[in-house]
Amino acid sequence: MYEYTREVFYYETDGMRVVHHANYIRWMEEARTAYFAAIGMPYEITESRGVMGPVLSVNARFKHSSRFGERFTVITRMTKYTGAKFTMKYEVINESGELLCEAESLHGFINNDYRPVSLARALPDLHVKMMNSVESDGK
Amino acid sequence: MYEYTREVFYYETDGMRVVHHANYIRWMEEARTAYFAAIGMPYEITESRGVMGPVLSVNARFKHSSRFGERFTVITRMTKYTGAKFTMKYEVINESGELLCEAESLHGFINNDYRPVSLARALPDLHVKMMNSVESDGK
Amino acid sequence: MYEYTREVFYYETDGMRVVHHANYIRWMEEARTAYFAAIGMPYEITESRGVMGPVLSVNARFKHSSRFGERFTVITRMTKYTGAKFTMKYEVINESGELLCEAESLHGFINNDYRPVSLARALPDLHVKMMNSVESDGK
Amino acid sequence: MYEYTREVFYYETDGMRVVHHANYIRWMEEARTAYFAAIGMPYEITESRGVMGPVLSVNARFKHSSRFGERFTVITRMTKYTGAKFTMKYEVINESGELLCEAESLHGFINNDYRPVSLARALPDLHVKMMNSVESDGK
Repeated sequence: MYEYTREVFYYETDGMRVVHHANYIRWMEEARTAYFAAIGMPYEITESRGVMGPVLSVNARFKHSSRFGERFTVITRMTKYTGAKFTMKYEVINESGELLCEAESLHGFINNDYRPVSLARALPDLHVKMMNSVESDGK
Repeated sequence: MYEYTREVFYYETDGMRVVHHANYIRWMEEARTAYFAAIGMPYEITESRGVMGPVLSVNARFKHSSRFGERFTVITRMTKYTGAKFTMKYEVINESGELLCEAESLHGFINNDYRPVSLARALPDLHVKMMNSVESDGK
Repeated sequence: MYEYTREVFYYETDGMRVVHHANYIRWMEEARTAYFAAIGMPYEITESRGVMGPVLSVNARFKHSSRFGERFTVITRMTKYTGAKFTMKYEVINESGELLCEAESLHGFINNDYRPVSLARALPDLHVKMMNSVESDGK
Repeated sequence: MYEYTREVFYYETDGMRVVHHANYIRWMEEARTAYFAAIGMPYEITESRGVMGPVLSVNARFKHSSRFGERFTVITRMTKYTGAKFTMKYEVINESGELLCEAESLHGFINNDYRPVSLARALPDLHVKMMNSVESDGK
C-alpha cells in the first residue's frame, strides 16, 4: 500500500469549478508511478529492461468533487498479480478523509515490440517483487 | 446513435508514441457533447435551464492503440435512462474499423446547487427527448 | 494562410468557466498540424523522412476569453523561413470575429538523433514547399 | 523568489518521449500558485475577496527537453508590479541545473464581474504584500 499526496492544480478544474473527472485517471497513473518506485520497481528500470505495463482497462466511481487548492491522497494497492497481468486499486480521499473516487486499473506486460510478455519469464527478479507486493483487497 | 469523428492531436500522444489512455475519457465527453447536440439537447441549453449531468462512473477497456494523425470515430449511444440517471456506451474505432476502446459512463442530474434532481420532474420536455433517444444495447 | 476551426471542449475550460490559457498553446499545435497538411507537408511524412520541427519558443497575448460550446478559428500563417528555422503566426478568433488570442511560435529542425539540421540540405523538396508557403506578416 | 519542485508525470510526455511544450505553461501556473501561497497571498484568499489575476500574456523559450521521471524546479520571481498588473519570471531547471525553459507571464486583476480592477485600491493590504515581494530581474 502506498499513499500518494499532492494539491489540486488550477488547470485541473473545469467549468463546474471542480476537478474534471478525466484527471482522476491521470492521478491514478501518478500514484501508480510512485507505488512502483516505492516497491523498488521504478518505471525507468522496468522500461530500460524492455518491459512496459500498459493499461488494459480502468473503472472509476466518482463520489465527491474536489476543488482547486485542496490536498488529495491516492491510497494505492496492487490487489492481483498473475505473472502476466496485474490489478491496481485506488481510493482517492481528501483531507477530511472523504472518499472522492474509487477505481481500479488492469495492466498487462509488453516488450519493446509491443508484444505481450510474461513478467515471470522475462524478468524473474521483478516477478518476485510483484509477488511480494500484491495484497488482498481487504488489507 | 451518433458517430463523432476527428483526428488524433499530437499532444494527445505519450512517451509510448500512442494516445494516452486518459484522453479516451475526454473523447467520450466530446462524443457525448456532440450526441446531446444531435438529439436537440445541447449542454448549453440544459445548463442554462439549471440542470447538469455529471459523470458518476466510467469504465473503459483499451483494445488497440492509436497514433498521431489517425482518424478515430466514437460510436455513441444512450443505453439506459431512468429519469434520474442515464448510461452512455461508446465504441472508439479507427479508420480500418478496428475497435480501439469500449467504454461506458453513468450520469446523474444535479441542479445549480449541486443537488441531485430528477430530470423527469425538473425538465419534462427534455425527459421526453431522453425517453425517445435511449436505445437498447444491441441496436 | 490556413483557417482551422472547431468547438471548445468542456474539459478545456477551467474554474473561471473559460478556456484555460495553456490550451491555446495546444490549439496552435492543432492549427499548425492542419496548416502543414494543407501545404502538402503532413507531419507523418516529414517525421517518416527523419526530420521534426520542435517548438523553440512561444509567445501569446490573451485578449478575450472563450467558453464551452463556442466555435473558434485559428488563422495560421508561416511568416518567416530561413532554411533552418521557421516562424508561425496565429490569430484565434471567435464566431463574432473577436480576437481571442494572438501568438507566434518559432521552430527549428532536428533529425532522429535530436540534432539540429538544415531542412534546405536534408529535404530539399520540402525546403521548396516551405519557400513557397512563407508569406509576409501583413498578408 | 520561490523554488517549486516535482517530478515529470508520464502523461506529460508526448510522442517525442519528452515533455510536451504546453505543459511548461501549466508548470508556470503551478509554480505561481506556490509562489503566492509562500508570500501569504494564496489564490483561495484573493479569490474569496473578489479579485483574480488572469494571464494576459506568456512568453517561453524552450532550451532543453525533459523526460518522464526527471525532477524539475521552477525558480519563480515577481519582477514587476504596478498596482494594476504584475510580471512573473520563471526559470525551469533540471537536477543537473540545466536550463530547460525560460519564461515570463503578465497578469492583470479582475473582479467577480470579470472587470479590470486596481489591486492597490481594491485590496490595499495585499497591494503592500505585492510591493514587498517584487524584486528586480537580476536578483
